[in-house]
Amino acid sequence: MTEFAVIGKRVARIDAPEKATGAARFTDDLELPHMLHGKILWSPHAHARILNIDTSRAERLKGVRAVITGKDWEGVKYGVFPATRDQHPLALNKVRYIGDEVAAVAAVDEDTAEEALELIRVEYELLTPVFDPEEAMLENAPRIHDEIPRNISVHVKTELGDVEKGFRESDHVREDRFETQAVAHCQLECYVALANFDASGKLEIWTPNQSPFTKRRALANALKMPLDDVRVLRSYVGGAFGGRSETFALDFCAALLSRKTGRPVKITYSREESFRSTRQKHPFVLYLKTGVKRDGTIIAKALRVVADGGAYNSTGPIAMTNPPTMLLPLFRIPNFRYEAFRVYTNKPVRGAMRGHGSQQFRFADDCQMDMIAEDLGLDPVEIRLKNVVNTGERLINGSVVSSSGLRECIERAVESSNWSKKGQLPRGRGLGIGCACTTCGFSLGIRSSSSAFVKFNEDGQATVITGTQDNGQGNWSMMVQIAAEELGVPMKDIRLVAADTETTPQDPGTYSMSTTFISGNAVKAACADARRQILEIAAEKLEANMADLDARKGRVYVRGSIEKGLDIPDIIKLAFASGRPIMGKGSYMPRMDPLNFLTGNISGQNTGTWSFGTVIAEVQVDTETGKVTLEKVTAVHDCGRAINPNEVEGQAEGSVVLGQGQALTEKLKWDGGLLLNASFLDYGIPTASDTPEMRTIIVETIDPSGPFGAKEAAEPINVAIIPAIANAIYDATGVRIHSLPITPDKIIEALKHSSS
Amino acid sequence: MTEFAVIGKRVARIDAPEKATGAARFTDDLELPHMLHGKILWSPHAHARILNIDTSRAERLKGVRAVITGKDWEGVKYGVFPATRDQHPLALNKVRYIGDEVAAVAAVDEDTAEEALELIRVEYELLTPVFDPEEAMLENAPRIHDEIPRNISVHVKTELGDVEKGFRESDHVREDRFETQAVAHCQLECYVALANFDASGKLEIWTPNQSPFTKRRALANALKMPLDDVRVLRSYVGGAFGGRSETFALDFCAALLSRKTGRPVKITYSREESFRSTRQKHPFVLYLKTGVKRDGTIIAKALRVVADGGAYNSTGPIAMTNPPTMLLPLFRIPNFRYEAFRVYTNKPVRGAMRGHGSQQFRFADDCQMDMIAEDLGLDPVEIRLKNVVNTGERLINGSVVSSSGLRECIERAVESSNWSKKGQLPRGRGLGIGCACTTCGFSLGIRSSSSAFVKFNEDGQATVITGTQDNGQGNWSMMVQIAAEELGVPMKDIRLVAADTETTPQDPGTYSMSTTFISGNAVKAACADARRQILEIAAEKLEANMADLDARKGRVYVRGSIEKGLDIPDIIKLAFASGRPIMGKGSYMPRMDPLNFLTGNISGQNTGTWSFGTVIAEVQVDTETGKVTLEKVTAVHDCGRAINPNEVEGQAEGSVVLGQGQALTEKLKWDGGLLLNASFLDYGIPTASDTPEMRTIIVETIDPSGPFGAKEAAEPINVAIIPAIANAIYDATGVRIHSLPITPDKIIEALKHSSS
Repeated sequence: MTEFAVIGKRVARIDAPEKATGAARFTDDLELPHMLHGKILWSPHAHARILNIDTSRAERLKGVRAVITGKDWEGVKYGVFPATRDQHPLALNKVRYIGDEVAAVAAVDEDTAEEALELIRVEYELLTPVFDPEEAMLENAPRIHDEIPRNISVHVKTELGDVEKGFRESDHVREDRFETQAVAHCQLECYVALANFDASGKLEIWTPNQSPFTKRRALANALKMPLDDVRVLRSYVGGAFGGRSETFALDFCAALLSRKTGRPVKITYSREESFRSTRQKHPFVLYLKTGVKRDGTIIAKALRVVADGGAYNSTGPIAMTNPPTMLLPLFRIPNFRYEAFRVYTNKPVRGAMRGHGSQQFRFADDCQMDMIAEDLGLDPVEIRLKNVVNTGERLINGSVVSSSGLRECIERAVESSNWSKKGQLPRGRGLGIGCACTTCGFSLGIRSSSSAFVKFNEDGQATVITGTQDNGQGNWSMMVQIAAEELGVPMKDIRLVAADTETTPQDPGTYSMSTTFISGNAVKAACADARRQILEIAAEKLEANMADLDARKGRVYVRGSIEKGLDIPDIIKLAFASGRPIMGKGSYMPRMDPLNFLTGNISGQNTGTWSFGTVIAEVQVDTETGKVTLEKVTAVHDCGRAINPNEVEGQAEGSVVLGQGQALTEKLKWDGGLLLNASFLDYGIPTASDTPEMRTIIVETIDPSGPFGAKEAAEPINVAIIPAIANAIYDATGVRIHSLPITPDKIIEALKHSSS
Repeated sequence: MTEFAVIGKRVARIDAPEKATGAARFTDDLELPHMLHGKILWSPHAHARILNIDTSRAERLKGVRAVITGKDWEGVKYGVFPATRDQHPLALNKVRYIGDEVAAVAAVDEDTAEEALELIRVEYELLTPVFDPEEAMLENAPRIHDEIPRNISVHVKTELGDVEKGFRESDHVREDRFETQAVAHCQLECYVALANFDASGKLEIWTPNQSPFTKRRALANALKMPLDDVRVLRSYVGGAFGGRSETFALDFCAALLSRKTGRPVKITYSREESFRSTRQKHPFVLYLKTGVKRDGTIIAKALRVVADGGAYNSTGPIAMTNPPTMLLPLFRIPNFRYEAFRVYTNKPVRGAMRGHGSQQFRFADDCQMDMIAEDLGLDPVEIRLKNVVNTGERLINGSVVSSSGLRECIERAVESSNWSKKGQLPRGRGLGIGCACTTCGFSLGIRSSSSAFVKFNEDGQATVITGTQDNGQGNWSMMVQIAAEELGVPMKDIRLVAADTETTPQDPGTYSMSTTFISGNAVKAACADARRQILEIAAEKLEANMADLDARKGRVYVRGSIEKGLDIPDIIKLAFASGRPIMGKGSYMPRMDPLNFLTGNISGQNTGTWSFGTVIAEVQVDTETGKVTLEKVTAVHDCGRAINPNEVEGQAEGSVVLGQGQALTEKLKWDGGLLLNASFLDYGIPTASDTPEMRTIIVETIDPSGPFGAKEAAEPINVAIIPAIANAIYDATGVRIHSLPITPDKIIEALKHSSS
C-alpha cells in the first residue's frame, strides 16, 4: 500500500466533464430575467481634460434605461492600497489613455446600448501625452496626475549589506541594461460582469475573478455598502494569469447601473476592450550590476528598475516590491541593493501578470549570469550551482527558505537535456538555462488567511466549503483531492462549495501563487478536524485506540488489519444518531511578515515557502532570417509534493508556451498611445504548431508546511523559460539580445554588427 | 442593565421590509431563462383502474416539450417511512381520489400545457369508492390498495398501567364519541415548484417547504440520485402549517420534466389544486373513556381513534402516534390505553397539519373533562388543577417533563378573563376553557439534529449558516436574534444563510414545533463556539481572565467595567491578523427516544421538552339563529423564554384565529369524493371582522435545555382554543356539540332537543 490513497495520483479533474462537453456555464453564458446590457464609452485620446459630457440624447433613446458618468461615483477611487488609489470607476475631469472609461449605458439590448454610446457628446481639451517612462520622469514632462511630480507613482528602495563595499571586493563587476515589453494576459474568456441588486438591496455579482473576497471589498467600498451586502458568486473563470485580481470599470458600472435601474445588468468586454481597458504586464527597463569573485561567487548585486506603469497605479506597487522577494532565495547574494521607479505614462494600465515583476528581472539576471560565466570562463551551470541557496538557509533579508530543490532541478535539467553536447552543436543550434523561484503568497494583512468548513450528509457524502477560486488551474479539483486524502473518503463522494463570498469563508484568492499552500492547508485543516471526529466515533465503536486507526478510501480501520474497521458512511450515521454530526472547520495563514509596498522594505519572512524551477531550452536559429524555433524544453520543477502530477505537468507546459510567446513573439504595438494589435490575429501568441517538445520533471521536496508537503506549481517554469531561450539564442548565434521579445529583426541586426 | 441585550426584546423581523414592501420573491415570482411551464392532469374519478393512457396527441402539440405518466417513475413510491410508502409520483394502474395525479406536461407556456392536458386520453375502469372510514373498515368494503385488507393503513395500540383495573377503581366513568372534520391548511401561497437540472447533472429546486433536507431525501430517492446531487434552495414560504412537510407530485414532476427537457420547469398549483391535491387534516372519530375519583382525580383513560386517512399514507402514521405524546404531559393519567386506526378512503390524502393529531383529541378530552366536572359538581378549573402534571414529573411512559407552566397558565387565564363571572352571565353568553401542550420535535432518527456554522468577515459582520427553514413564523429572525445575543454582536451586523441543502448543514426542518428548541440550540452552540474564540483573543489583548469577560452589543469588556474592553470588529481584525479567523460550529439534538410509529410504542422520552397553554374563550350565541360570536380570548402560554414577545403574540393570535375557524366555520364539503368548496370564497376561513378581542399572556418557564430557556411558541393556543370555544358554547347554551365544526344548524338542532 502506498503512502497516500489519492494524493500524488493522476486523478481526473472534477470539472473535466462539464468543460470538455461545453456544458460549463461561464459568466457570459448567464442570463437573468429582465436583464439589461451595458456598454462603456472609452476615451479616444491619450491625454485630455474632460470639459463636458452631454448624455441627454443617449438618455432619450428608446430602450436606454440609465447612463452614468464619473460624476455618478462621487469621487470614488480604487487601487490596491488606500494610499495608491488613483483611478475612478469612470474618468472624472481627465482621461489618461486611449481606452480610459468615460461613461456607461444600460439598455434593453446590446445594439441599443451601442447606439446610445454614439449619442453621448464629450468635449475634450487635448493635453500633451507622454509614452516613454524615462521621458515621463523628466522634470518638464507633462503631468498625468496633477499632484504627482515627475509622474513617479511608486518609488521603492532597499539596501541589504554594503553593496558598494561588495563591488569593491569583487574580482569582476559588470553592469547591463535590459528591457522587457508590455504583454497582455490573453485569457480565452473576455472580461464580463453580471450584476443584480436584489429586492432587499443586496448586490449579487458574477464576474471572472481571482478573489471573490477582494472583489467584494472593492465593490463595497465603491458603492458605500456594508461588506456583507455584496455577494460575489462563484463563476467559472476562463483564465486569469494575474489579470483578474482587480476590480474593473465594467464590474463597478454593471453594479451601479443595476442599482439605478433595479434590473440585472451585464457588461461584456470585446476582445479589444479586454486587451486595452483592463491590465497589461509592466514593461521594465532594468539596470543590473553584479560583482563576483573569480570563481563565480556572487558578492554584490544592484538592480535599478524603471517600470512603465501606464495611466494608473492598479496593483503596480506590488510589482515594484516583488522582484527582490523572488531574487534572493535563488542564488546567495551577500550584499544587495534594489531601487525601482514606477512611472505613469499615457498608456493602458499595467497591473499583475504571471510572475508580477519576477519574469522581468529573471530575464536580466539569468542572461547576465551567463555573460559573467563567459567573462570568467565558467560553465553557466557551474556558476549557478556555486551560488545556490540551500534548504534551511537564512537570506540576507531574514527570510528562511524552508525547502529548496533548486540544486536538484539544475542537475536533473542538465542530465535530462542535451546540455552535455553544448559547445559541440552546429552554428544555429543552441542551449540555454534559466532558473526561477516564486513565493507562495505574501502577506495581505488581515486578509492573508484562508478558512474552510466541511460537513457530511447522512449518506456519508461530504461537502467542502472554501473561498478558494479556480481560474482554470484545477484548484477546485485539488481541494477535493486534499479533502479526500485527509477525510479518507473517495473523491466522488465529496462536493465543493467554493468562491462565493456569502456561503464560504474568507480566502485570499489565487494571487501570488498561494492557492495550494494557503487554501490547500485550510481545507486540509478543516478536514483534519472532521477526521478527528470520525476516528473518535470509530474508536468508540471498534473499541480501539484512536491513534491506531487510519481512514482511507471510505473506511476507517485498525492500521495493519483493514478487515477490523467500519465504512465511513456507517460512522457518519452513528455520528448523526448520537447528535454529533461531523462538521469540520479550519484556517491557515503562513508565518509571513508584511512587505512594505510603499517603501520597498522586504525585511523578514516574505512568504511561507518558495517553489523552484530550472528550464533548459534548445533552439534552432535560422541565421539568414533570424527565425527562432524552440525545439526542446526540459522543465524541472520543485513544487513540493505534486498533488496531481497531471496538473503540475499541465501547468508547466502552459507556462512554457506562455513564456515562449513573451520571449519570442508577443508584443503590444503602438502608434503613440494607440494600441494597434488588440486581437489574437495580430498579437502573436504561439500556436499549437509553435509548441516545442517538452519534458517536465518533478522534483519533490516535501515542504514541512505545505499540505502533504505541496507548494506552488509551475510559475518558475513560466519565468525561467524566457532567459533559457535568450541564453540558447546566444549559444546558437553568439549574439546577445538585451530586450524582449527576441524577434528575427533584432537577431539579424545583431548578427550584422557581430559579423562586421 | 437587563440580563440580555437582545433576547426577550421586541425586535423587528429581518424580513419585515421585504415582506411589507412586497419586494420579497416567493417561488412563483422566480423565473429562469428558457423556463418551461408544467401542468398536471388529475383523476376525475374517486376510484378507478387506469386501463390506458394515450399521450401521443399531447406530445405532438406545438410547444409541448415533454409528457410523463406513472410509467416514467419505474415504480417509485413515496411516503414518510419506507414501510408505509404507498404513493407514486403519478398514479400507476389505479386512481384513488378525485385529484389523484395521472400525467404531467411541460410546455413553453401555461396555455399550451393546459391544452396538452386536454389532449391526453385516459381510459378508466370505474371501481366502487368508499368515503366513510368506519365503513371502509368493514370486511366487504372495496379495497383501495389491493394488498391492504379492511383498508387499515395504520393500526397502533399501546397500554400503560392497567386501564381496566383503573376503570374498576374509579368512582365515575364516562365514555363519549366525538368527531372532527377535514380541514385545509389554506396557506396564502399556493403550492409551486421550480426545478432545474444544471449542466453537471445536478438538480436544483425551489419550492416552499418545511424542511429542505427532507425534500432533498425524497427527490434523491425518487430520481435515484446521490443525495448531494439534489440541491433544495432557500425560498420564502407563504405559510406551511404542516402542509409543506412532504414532497408532492408537482415537486417530483417538475424535476423529472426538467431532466427530460434539459430546461427549467415550473409547476404552480391553482388554489383548487392546492386544496385538493396536496394534503388535508385527518378527520378523527374519537371514543374517549375516562375514569375518575369523586374528587376529580383521573384514574384511567382509554382513547380509540378511527381516522380518515384518504387515499394514501403520507405522514399519517405520525398523526396516529402523536396524540398520546401530547396527552400525557398535561394531566396525570396513571393508566392509559390508546388505539388508533388510520383508514384509507377515496378522499384526498390526509397528512400533517398544526397539532398533527393533538387538536382532535384535545377537543374530545377538554370537552369530556368539563362533562365530568359537571357530573361531579366540580368547577372545570378545579378538575384541571387537581390533575396538572408538575415540572420534573416522570410520566407513565417514562418521559420526564423538564418544565411545565400549565398550572400558572390556568391560574393566569382565570385571573385575566371573566372566569369569575361564569355562571352569572346571561343566557347566550358563555365561558369555556381548554388546555394543551406540544412536543418540541420528536426523534426522526439520524436526521433529528440541527447544525450550524458561523463566520465573520474582516469588518466584524457575522454570517450564520443554518439549515433552518422559515415558513413565515419569523424563524430566521429568531436565529439572528439568538446569534446576536450569544455573539454579543448587534442584529444588524449578522447575515443569515439558511435552508439551502448545499451550503447549510443538516436541519430537521420546521416540523413538530422543533425549530426554536432544536435549530435555535444549534445556532446558539455554533455562536458559543465563536464567542469562546472571541473572548480568548480579547482576554489576551486585555490581559484579563476569559471568565471575567462579557460580550454585548458589539463589545467585549471586563464584567462590571464596560470601559475596559474592545469593540468586537477590532477583535475580529486581531483574529484575522493572527491567523485565527473566528469560525464557529455547533449541533444540537435533544435526548429523545424514537417513537415507533408503526406500533404506537411511546415508551421513553418522547421529546426534548413541551410547551403548554391555556385558553379561555368567551362567546355570545344567538339562540335564535345559532350564530356564535367569539367575543374574547385569553390565551396564556408557557413558551419557555419568549425570545421575541412580538412573535410569540403574533403566533398566538394567528393560532387563535386558525382554531376559531376549525371550531366554528371551516369544513371541506363533499359530494361523494368530489370536493365542493375548494376556494377561499366558499371554504369559511374567519375574516378580520370575525377576529375576537385577544389577550396573550406569556408565562416564562425557563426550560433548562431550551436556547436561553426557550421552547416552542403558540401551538398549544391553536389546540386549546377549540375545546375552549366548545365548552363556552355549552356554558352559553347548555348544549354539548360533539362534532366539529360547531355550526349554527347543529346548535339549533341541539337546542331543539334540549328544550323538548
